[in-house]
Amino acid sequence: MVGATGYTGVELLRLLVMHPGVEISCVTSRSNDGTRVDEMFPSLRGFLDLPFTVPDDGRLAEADVVFFATPNGVAMDSVPALLKAGTRVIDLAADFRIRDAGVWSQWYGMQHACPELIAEAVYGLPELNREAIRTARLVANPGCYPTAVTLGFLPLVERGLVELDSLIADAKSGASGAGRKASVANLLCEAGDSFKAYGVAGHRHLPEISQNLRQISGVDALDLVFVPHLLPMIRGIHATLYARLTHGFQAMEPADLQAIYEQRYARETFVDVLPPGSHPETRSVRGANLCRMAVHRPQNGRRVVVLSVIDNLVKGAAGQAVQNMNLMLGFQEETGLRHPGLLP
Amino acid sequence: MVGATGYTGVELLRLLVMHPGVEISCVTSRSNDGTRVDEMFPSLRGFLDLPFTVPDDGRLAEADVVFFATPNGVAMDSVPALLKAGTRVIDLAADFRIRDAGVWSQWYGMQHACPELIAEAVYGLPELNREAIRTARLVANPGCYPTAVTLGFLPLVERGLVELDSLIADAKSGASGAGRKASVANLLCEAGDSFKAYGVAGHRHLPEISQNLRQISGVDALDLVFVPHLLPMIRGIHATLYARLTHGFQAMEPADLQAIYEQRYARETFVDVLPPGSHPETRSVRGANLCRMAVHRPQNGRRVVVLSVIDNLVKGAAGQAVQNMNLMLGFQEETGLRHPGLLP
Amino acid sequence: MVGATGYTGVELLRLLVMHPGVEISCVTSRSNDGTRVDEMFPSLRGFLDLPFTVPDDGRLAEADVVFFATPNGVAMDSVPALLKAGTRVIDLAADFRIRDAGVWSQWYGMQHACPELIAEAVYGLPELNREAIRTARLVANPGCYPTAVTLGFLPLVERGLVELDSLIADAKSGASGAGRKASVANLLCEAGDSFKAYGVAGHRHLPEISQNLRQISGVDALDLVFVPHLLPMIRGIHATLYARLTHGFQAMEPADLQAIYEQRYARETFVDVLPPGSHPETRSVRGANLCRMAVHRPQNGRRVVVLSVIDNLVKGAAGQAVQNMNLMLGFQEETGLRHPGLLP
Amino acid sequence: MVGATGYTGVELLRLLVMHPGVEISCVTSRSNDGTRVDEMFPSLRGFLDLPFTVPDDGRLAEADVVFFATPNGVAMDSVPALLKAGTRVIDLAADFRIRDAGVWSQWYGMQHACPELIAEAVYGLPELNREAIRTARLVANPGCYPTAVTLGFLPLVERGLVELDSLIADAKSGASGAGRKASVANLLCEAGDSFKAYGVAGHRHLPEISQNLRQISGVDALDLVFVPHLLPMIRGIHATLYARLTHGFQAMEPADLQAIYEQRYARETFVDVLPPGSHPETRSVRGANLCRMAVHRPQNGRRVVVLSVIDNLVKGAAGQAVQNMNLMLGFQEETGLRHPGLLP
Repeated sequence: MVGATGYTGVELLRLLVMHPGVEISCVTSRSNDGTRVDEMFPSLRGFLDLPFTVPDDGRLAEADVVFFATPNGVAMDSVPALLKAGTRVIDLAADFRIRDAGVWSQWYGMQHACPELIAEAVYGLPELNREAIRTARLVANPGCYPTAVTLGFLPLVERGLVELDSLIADAKSGASGAGRKASVANLLCEAGDSFKAYGVAGHRHLPEISQNLRQISGVDALDLVFVPHLLPMIRGIHATLYARLTHGFQAMEPADLQAIYEQRYARETFVDVLPPGSHPETRSVRGANLCRMAVHRPQNGRRVVVLSVIDNLVKGAAGQAVQNMNLMLGFQEETGLRHPGLLP
Repeated sequence: MVGATGYTGVELLRLLVMHPGVEISCVTSRSNDGTRVDEMFPSLRGFLDLPFTVPDDGRLAEADVVFFATPNGVAMDSVPALLKAGTRVIDLAADFRIRDAGVWSQWYGMQHACPELIAEAVYGLPELNREAIRTARLVANPGCYPTAVTLGFLPLVERGLVELDSLIADAKSGASGAGRKASVANLLCEAGDSFKAYGVAGHRHLPEISQNLRQISGVDALDLVFVPHLLPMIRGIHATLYARLTHGFQAMEPADLQAIYEQRYARETFVDVLPPGSHPETRSVRGANLCRMAVHRPQNGRRVVVLSVIDNLVKGAAGQAVQNMNLMLGFQEETGLRHPGLLP
Repeated sequence: MVGATGYTGVELLRLLVMHPGVEISCVTSRSNDGTRVDEMFPSLRGFLDLPFTVPDDGRLAEADVVFFATPNGVAMDSVPALLKAGTRVIDLAADFRIRDAGVWSQWYGMQHACPELIAEAVYGLPELNREAIRTARLVANPGCYPTAVTLGFLPLVERGLVELDSLIADAKSGASGAGRKASVANLLCEAGDSFKAYGVAGHRHLPEISQNLRQISGVDALDLVFVPHLLPMIRGIHATLYARLTHGFQAMEPADLQAIYEQRYARETFVDVLPPGSHPETRSVRGANLCRMAVHRPQNGRRVVVLSVIDNLVKGAAGQAVQNMNLMLGFQEETGLRHPGLLP
Repeated sequence: MVGATGYTGVELLRLLVMHPGVEISCVTSRSNDGTRVDEMFPSLRGFLDLPFTVPDDGRLAEADVVFFATPNGVAMDSVPALLKAGTRVIDLAADFRIRDAGVWSQWYGMQHACPELIAEAVYGLPELNREAIRTARLVANPGCYPTAVTLGFLPLVERGLVELDSLIADAKSGASGAGRKASVANLLCEAGDSFKAYGVAGHRHLPEISQNLRQISGVDALDLVFVPHLLPMIRGIHATLYARLTHGFQAMEPADLQAIYEQRYARETFVDVLPPGSHPETRSVRGANLCRMAVHRPQNGRRVVVLSVIDNLVKGAAGQAVQNMNLMLGFQEETGLRHPGLLP
């Protein structure tokens, strides 16, 4: 596992130490070489006795799977060698999420180190790409917002129920989405007891979500407005999604809409559609690998509202990575991931 | 002042004890008769030495203005007598906000006690109805969400820039909006460290906002989707507003949109339009009588996004009530209301 | 399981549904008869499909163990019948914690319904009474503060290192300690973003802690000052403990003090002594059945400071109850209780 | 005003822009030269239209008073020149708080630049040194913890009521005490939703508090244990103080203790002694220049417990600085500082 000093990293370790089929061979961090992992994260005392070590591609290549929980742009430097050595890779950062290397460079501000591998990478949203993930050598673990938004819109877009130029994703995230790096903006005294939007002009998850919705709809001309907001709390994303029903579907019964959601996710362990009239709370999925949602049609009008919540560090990052690993290694998809959220 | 045991009440007291032209003659509360106000709210120790008393219309009628910071449906029982006695009234609850008594009854679940006075009541949003407020006998102080949403949409709707069937208000409020009454739902352990939508099927502020936007646009056929959410914090509303530009205005320059907002509010002390590209934070108006906003047009597309923040207890309730009182009594509109937000 | 509508109840259910050796036969609540448990607590959706039912001693008696997660004074009415029927009982409330029925009545304000059973009840702190718990018919699960304070003082008091009239426990608890009942005092807007002491004149956990320390020291004349405080967060207790070394031990080396703590808890899975100089954080045990502590001797003076943290709902309530159940039923003590805290 | 990019700085600006007798001539910040102050702190929009400028001793010397809201060790480089120029100085940092330059160096890790001025500096706690402050050229504004702790212990120590080797200050502070600098430790995701002690081995405010208590008692041999803790909130300090009554005073009536506190602070506008049995909340002084306290004697035993709260940024920093300025410039001591706390 490469880069475990961030929130995604420690969450991945929390899940992996409880996983019955996993042995963690090494945990790397260039800047903390020699420090015990549980000294930095005392919650792991008694569960992991490894120190951080400097990343070494040879050593990493001995593992069945290597996770990258690193900043964007790090994984792509090591992935070619690891794949060549026969190791499979799950990248929790964004290096392999965007199909178009030009678009990627534009949003991430750097050249891609191995554009030839982008096409091979599988976008690791099991509810969308389960079969491809099983055999993938390289999985691009989805972003947190894209997970909540894509799963929320999926049934509507898949069936062509809504106008694709009417989509709005008003998304709110806890502060852990910003990572564990020294910054003024994410101090308790800045991000606490307050609320704001950010990145209205353009956020990196916009092209990722649009790409997903294009794949699902098969339509290129799609206009999504995506506004992320920062919540004064640590974990949790709530996406409030808006769309306008196409003319043909305005006569649809409310019960039909509910049924469409329930059927689409009936066999998905990690997606939970609430009964009609519900409002999911982020706390109900705290620590759990689950996307919980409800679908509404206010005043029985033309507009549909979907409420979709995840724990950004679990179903939005580390839990989804373990779900992908389970698929890749032939474990039961649920292994190590079935536990209720921590409420209250 | 009637009913001061809630958050709106104590906030109104905080502002009134600092107001140079106000003397508080009595503070009523049926259930706390005899208790000193500053025993319930120690923050007022040294500023107010009155006890709560049982409301008495005769005594109230001696005041120049009576504020009702009571639950919905209380003020309407006393208002006719007070007006007859020549006392002016500012109702911080919803009794006189909705023009149509039938609509009011439907949303508030009771018969109106004095429907004949509804037409006379002035909706107390000074930025919309300043002149009428000056001479009003009865002012209906606006709801918190309606203040943030109406002021945010106003310049767009007033100029006919946007399609009136495309309006969405995704609004988030701190928990003080739910008031100071014993309830499980608003416990720290329920509302804290979590986020959810509520009332998607229909919230009482929807008809109030729609009524405002109809007044501003002069158009009846208007379709607004309003989704309120509960923030894990005490004070602050953030409204994220979405609308689609009408065909004629799609060619508008970004700078024009900004200029429209700046001009509309150029002479308004209590509305602050931020520079282009800004994201207002609720904390920047904590404790202040101010609506701060920014206007965006993501990717220069057809959709406009307005970000509008207030302190729900100040510009969304008690501060606006004092602003209305200032207008009614001939004080400078800013009197007692000019101080910066408490940041951090 | 009796009474599962509170925070202790839902936490116990979270742990029990994950326990490999437990089947939950019924979950009772008089006021929610017929409601599905997972409707009240959506975090349990997919893990528990029982409705709440009215408590019925006959039905309860069929279980191997009955947990009472009820208000104080409820369990004592049912316990005699259950014990007679051969069912074992773990009471998470305070009915059987205090040896002296007179003292109990004085602090809890009611007559005890079965004082004859108090002597039989075992105080369920495994680190103190492990062997007695194994064979107990009736276990009094400790209070949250008493767990953190007793485990923190234990090594000092057991060895006679400190003056027993110098003890101070300055304890801070998250709001979940106050339970899930409608009240103004525990609203987010009252308990959030603020901090205060409470119960300085006397708190019900004072006689419980004193009783524990008397048992440990074998000395009756003991003077403890206990000041609880309310933290603006949900889970977690931090006890800061102060004591003065007896004359004989003032010459002790700092390393000796550390060694005494480490040795005392060397074989305890659920107590973790941190290295010298550490400061345990409540978040490091969030959701975990663990008491984590550090011992200090500032400026190498006469005073010892112990920092002791638990999750009040886990090691301070539901987790400890499961630990006791494991001992009573012959499971491994750790079964269902080994997982890292949820950090961040 | 020198250095206004921190929380103390912005709070000082909030108070100064409202002060009727103050004109802010310049606000300096080396790293933000040219940026408008209200761009960094939008809460000040409409109240201050100055940009940050590079500090310039000549320009500063034109002011009647210069405030230093800078990191420790900055003021001492400029103070000699400013005093020589006849300008008076209030240092909100620690440069002139400790009488003994050797002790200062030991705790602050640097050489003092002008040890000859330390003796002249007046420690700016008006309740202790009011008259000296009026004529001081150089005021050392007290630390936040020392303000809450010193005022809380003062009546006990002044009268010789307690054993000076029994003092304990268990203090809890909001995160704004740590300042506005990029750091991992103070991220919302680190300091939020958690609680811990820190600096148990020794905190810089320990020698400052001890010095105050020595001055008050006139006794050198004094043993104080001081344990600071970090609260998951922004503003507020709560000091819980413990002391043992001397033998002579154990027979004292509870009412006497209360009376001693009330009398000591009867004429102090900015200290509020609550009625017997009270528990002050930090929120009751949020934004206010006030130390609110209550005194207890649990179980009527030998130990006294004092609960003392302040807003660390106001009475613990910027408000106290304005109070000192008022004294120095001959304003009424209360000018610009009389307003209730922001509750809720």
